Amino acid sequence: MSAENSNSFPQTTALVGIIMGSKSDLPIMQDAADVLKEFGINYEITVVSAHRTPERMFNYAKQAHNRGIKVIIAGAGGAAHLPGMVASITTLPVIGVPVKSSNSIDGWDSILSILQMPNGIPVATVALNAAKNAGLLAAQILATADESITVKMQAYKDDLRKKVEESAESL
Amino acid sequence: MSAENSNSFPQTTALVGIIMGSKSDLPIMQDAADVLKEFGINYEITVVSAHRTPERMFNYAKQAHNRGIKVIIAGAGGAAHLPGMVASITTLPVIGVPVKSSNSIDGWDSILSILQMPNGIPVATVALNAAKNAGLLAAQILATADESITVKMQAYKDDLRKKVEESAESL
Amino acid sequence: MSAENSNSFPQTTALVGIIMGSKSDLPIMQDAADVLKEFGINYEITVVSAHRTPERMFNYAKQAHNRGIKVIIAGAGGAAHLPGMVASITTLPVIGVPVKSSNSIDGWDSILSILQMPNGIPVATVALNAAKNAGLLAAQILATADESITVKMQAYKDDLRKKVEESAESL
Amino acid sequence: MSAENSNSFPQTTALVGIIMGSKSDLPIMQDAADVLKEFGINYEITVVSAHRTPERMFNYAKQAHNRGIKVIIAGAGGAAHLPGMVASITTLPVIGVPVKSSNSIDGWDSILSILQMPNGIPVATVALNAAKNAGLLAAQILATADESITVKMQAYKDDLRKKVEESAESL
Amino acid sequence: MSAENSNSFPQTTALVGIIMGSKSDLPIMQDAADVLKEFGINYEITVVSAHRTPERMFNYAKQAHNRGIKVIIAGAGGAAHLPGMVASITTLPVIGVPVKSSNSIDGWDSILSILQMPNGIPVATVALNAAKNAGLLAAQILATADESITVKMQAYKDDLRKKVEESAESL
Amino acid sequence: MSAENSNSFPQTTALVGIIMGSKSDLPIMQDAADVLKEFGINYEITVVSAHRTPERMFNYAKQAHNRGIKVIIAGAGGAAHLPGMVASITTLPVIGVPVKSSNSIDGWDSILSILQMPNGIPVATVALNAAKNAGLLAAQILATADESITVKMQAYKDDLRKKVEESAESL
Amino acid sequence: MSAENSNSFPQTTALVGIIMGSKSDLPIMQDAADVLKEFGINYEITVVSAHRTPERMFNYAKQAHNRGIKVIIAGAGGAAHLPGMVASITTLPVIGVPVKSSNSIDGWDSILSILQMPNGIPVATVALNAAKNAGLLAAQILATADESITVKMQAYKDDLRKKVEESAESL
Amino acid sequence: MSAENSNSFPQTTALVGIIMGSKSDLPIMQDAADVLKEFGINYEITVVSAHRTPERMFNYAKQAHNRGIKVIIAGAGGAAHLPGMVASITTLPVIGVPVKSSNSIDGWDSILSILQMPNGIPVATVALNAAKNAGLLAAQILATADESITVKMQAYKDDLRKKVEESAESL
Repeated sequence: MSAENSNSFPQTTALVGIIMGSKSDLPIMQDAADVLKEFGINYEITVVSAHRTPERMFNYAKQAHNRGIKVIIAGAGGAAHLPGMVASITTLPVIGVPVKSSNSIDGWDSILSILQMPNGIPVATVALNAAKNAGLLAAQILATADESITVKMQAYKDDLRKKVEESAESL
Repeated sequence: MSAENSNSFPQTTALVGIIMGSKSDLPIMQDAADVLKEFGINYEITVVSAHRTPERMFNYAKQAHNRGIKVIIAGAGGAAHLPGMVASITTLPVIGVPVKSSNSIDGWDSILSILQMPNGIPVATVALNAAKNAGLLAAQILATADESITVKMQAYKDDLRKKVEESAESL
Repeated sequence: MSAENSNSFPQTTALVGIIMGSKSDLPIMQDAADVLKEFGINYEITVVSAHRTPERMFNYAKQAHNRGIKVIIAGAGGAAHLPGMVASITTLPVIGVPVKSSNSIDGWDSILSILQMPNGIPVATVALNAAKNAGLLAAQILATADESITVKMQAYKDDLRKKVEESAESL
Repeated sequence: MSAENSNSFPQTTALVGIIMGSKSDLPIMQDAADVLKEFGINYEITVVSAHRTPERMFNYAKQAHNRGIKVIIAGAGGAAHLPGMVASITTLPVIGVPVKSSNSIDGWDSILSILQMPNGIPVATVALNAAKNAGLLAAQILATADESITVKMQAYKDDLRKKVEESAESL
Repeated sequence: MSAENSNSFPQTTALVGIIMGSKSDLPIMQDAADVLKEFGINYEITVVSAHRTPERMFNYAKQAHNRGIKVIIAGAGGAAHLPGMVASITTLPVIGVPVKSSNSIDGWDSILSILQMPNGIPVATVALNAAKNAGLLAAQILATADESITVKMQAYKDDLRKKVEESAESL
Repeated sequence: MSAENSNSFPQTTALVGIIMGSKSDLPIMQDAADVLKEFGINYEITVVSAHRTPERMFNYAKQAHNRGIKVIIAGAGGAAHLPGMVASITTLPVIGVPVKSSNSIDGWDSILSILQMPNGIPVATVALNAAKNAGLLAAQILATADESITVKMQAYKDDLRKKVEESAESL
Repeated sequence: MSAENSNSFPQTTALVGIIMGSKSDLPIMQDAADVLKEFGINYEITVVSAHRTPERMFNYAKQAHNRGIKVIIAGAGGAAHLPGMVASITTLPVIGVPVKSSNSIDGWDSILSILQMPNGIPVATVALNAAKNAGLLAAQILATADESITVKMQAYKDDLRKKVEESAESL
Repeated sequence: MSAENSNSFPQTTALVGIIMGSKSDLPIMQDAADVLKEFGINYEITVVSAHRTPERMFNYAKQAHNRGIKVIIAGAGGAAHLPGMVASITTLPVIGVPVKSSNSIDGWDSILSILQMPNGIPVATVALNAAKNAGLLAAQILATADESITVKMQAYKDDLRKKVEESAESL
């Protein structure tokens, strides 16, 4: 694995690492970044392909914990192996985002490839294309040790409620 | 909601709350408890039905954070609303276990009812019947603030590896 | 549940309460309102989200019977918990409309989340996006105690028949 | 249609007509009868096959309203046409029970044949094999004009709640 | 069934009766008519809805054999009961065309509602939207007693072959 | 194709040729033979595998019409190519029976491989495992030129009706 | 099989034969040709329809090995019998490309018809519409006896990796 | 990746490497070994788990070509990442066997996780549980450079044919 040295990722202040199998997943995965920004949580975002850059994937997963990452969000489509393979290598919680990519059969392959992990290696799967929920879940995970995030999460939920109430009044 | 007072749950040292829609889900959900016990993480386990005890569900979700719970694991089958409804009420991370119960169509209803949550309300969904993975994911979440759990998680993964290597040798 | 007081719904002459999980469901759910109007049946229509306004949902369901509502029509998409959760709280018949919303997988999640309710808590499910049929079913339910609606229903069916016969002649 | 006279059904005190496509559906459909009996609601139960006795089906549906029936529960499996065809003929509300019969593909055909009715002709579909819920839904429909059934329905729901609470305590 | 007399269909020289559940199915079902015309086989085409005109459907099926019809082609979408119900009433062979109508879930409901008929009542189902194949199948059925149609069918198949060979040469 | 001569099938009085992809399909396919026997229609039954004996399949299909066969019933499971390939070679009507064989995924592969034929080459598909219906459909096809079979078919349908009426009385 | 002589295919320097059921599959199947060209591997490409030119298909498969072809790539949609039937006739490895053609149900029929071959007759199935992967797989197969192709394949993989790394840097 | 050295696999005379994700897949995967033995082709068989032994998997794939392996057969169930991940690392052709393991949803997850690989990284997928076909496909691949295997393959096919002909005679 001679390429390993070339995949040495730098130390980071990011708590959440957002990775995706292809740059074409960015329009979906950006939602995770946006919601983390809204919560004031540092993140990094990059492309890591299980199939086209297996060593990069291996090294990203292997180094994430020591680099200071606490949660990994991984999005992929079709035979989506990225979330599960990263989860097999790291001890960090991995959130999987099934992406309805152009090569996916209505999203079923993306969902099942990410969700149906064997016992021993969990992936926290969210809904199809639901990168925003992946970001929120990462925030909830970090909130288990940071009450200030819980306060923001409660405010976020209150805001969701108010928007529904307003839309109800506007009907 | 006169029944609310009767659903006042006591303070607890449990960090993980395991709930299930029916006692018949216990043979599946026990796996989550067992793995948490193995990791030395305090948990509580009870029956909370979204459909038969909606107020109990409401109150469990509402009180969990203040009671000291940090992660909720919710298992249900068929039109499985428990994980998503609990997630709608609490700010805690909620792990959903789709159970292939007797009234489920090969598990598809359980999976889709839990996984396909709308933006704003994530549920960390694991594989069908994969309560063990729910327990491991809860441990990983708690490990983000407790390095000792990370050490155990690495040992757990090493053990998985060794068992495969042994089975390979025995072939 | 401090918000309960703020969700006190007024008395109403409406016999049918139409609720939907999101204002974006309105183009579909309006069909239910239109057909009830055609039958001269009073209805109310509002947004109630199980996931974003769980207390509002709880209170709507809890108060509906005492407010004079006789049938509830609830539409939602994706992991559609609104119809089933309302049915868990009220004794009224609840008609569920699976909506093929933007976050739904071809409607399968909406259908299964609404249809596959456990024993004890029925939801009268209609076809995907079939809010018109939900309105007609509400009228049929009210017709069990109001023969004048039955007369209108027979006329409605006669009209359906005539339109087919006319289209057959025009071929 | 010379057989029509032979399909003249007698007047009845039954408020609910339970029909099924085959006697082999009886073990499932009996649940509807049992729950109606529990609620003290008169019912009749018989076999009416859309495919093997189309005229009997036609006449049953045509005569039901005048015979005093207020709700029809129809169960069938496979290409299950009974509920929808009965609904096309009567103005009464029709509850459809998809039966996972021996010739059904995991119940999908039964569900889709009953649920996916065109606009104009609703069938109130319940979960696969959920004849008990069909009975409860019939009771809820009759309760819209009979408050005594509502009282029983509330007691039924209270009982469901208590059983969950007891099972929770026994854990 | 007082409307029966009004549904008396005239004698016909048509050998094939093409019926469809809605005029909106005509763009699909016209293919059956076109291919029969190409084979010089008399047909009639009309709208017969199982759900909106059940008596018309009943009478069409009941009278078809005596009117001289030898094969019925029936197309419908969603909970498509027309082919199966017609087959339940007539002794004629019935060809079912599942139509991917606007209210269909990707055609699955149309297919299963038509294909999965119980033992005793066959429907000869063709592919989704394959009205042309329904016409060809009707021709093949009539060819069992009319060798001149067999000759045309062989020519039709030869033509299919030639077109492929030509397209192969043009590559 | 040197094996062609060895696949010369003899002249026959059979009007219906029943073929199946594997002898293991016989318990299902025997139903077709039984119903034809009941109708007094001559048939032959043999094993012809599209995948293991392609030349035998080719020759069977090529010779069937000249041998006097009028309808072919072909049953197969999994990637079931037999009905469609036979239909591509012969001008005779081909009835396809999707068999839920041991290598089939709940029958979906068998159904779709047989049903979804391209325009130009119809296969009259019946329900999963419904060889009895295939036999009845063959009888209906032959009845288009033999009124005596129509009479028997009407009697068969009357018998189905009587059995339902008797089972209704026995309830 | 009098047409056999007319389907005598010439000797060829092509190592890979690419065939498709319809010229309309060409936009998909061209990807296989393009990738083989990129690898400097001779190929031929033509239209061979299992259903419209069964004899041409039979002869193509029968002659391929003797003509010098080493791998066959076959693409088809709907009830896609071409890959499996070719595999039943030749001893060469056959790669099947399920095409999401206009008559396919979201590709499920194409996939299952090609993938679910019975024991004894393998088809190497690639993803829906993945003709490029079929070309690559053909190259990998030829590479087992030609190390120069392996070198190119490694370069191809290195290029995939570099493109991901570049896209990661551009983020 | 300090464990790499411990995963140094020895040189081998095996041409085919059979790997599986779990020893519980052995009853299925043994079929591949048996058929290779029948063809006189050297193979090795071991357990390599993508999720529990990612480094072992990585090293197996990385070293296979240099060790003399020419084809890899990989079987796995559920979210089956083994075949695709091995294919991402090696230049060898990889045959994927979807296994219907205990944690699989009727095999759909196994199939889609293996089949739906992105462009650039093919996996030659065979039918669910079809390890025998994987073995035959490996033999066909090796036969492209070894005519003696082609001779055996033709004999194998002749044998399949004879068995069908015998079973036809025994009917």
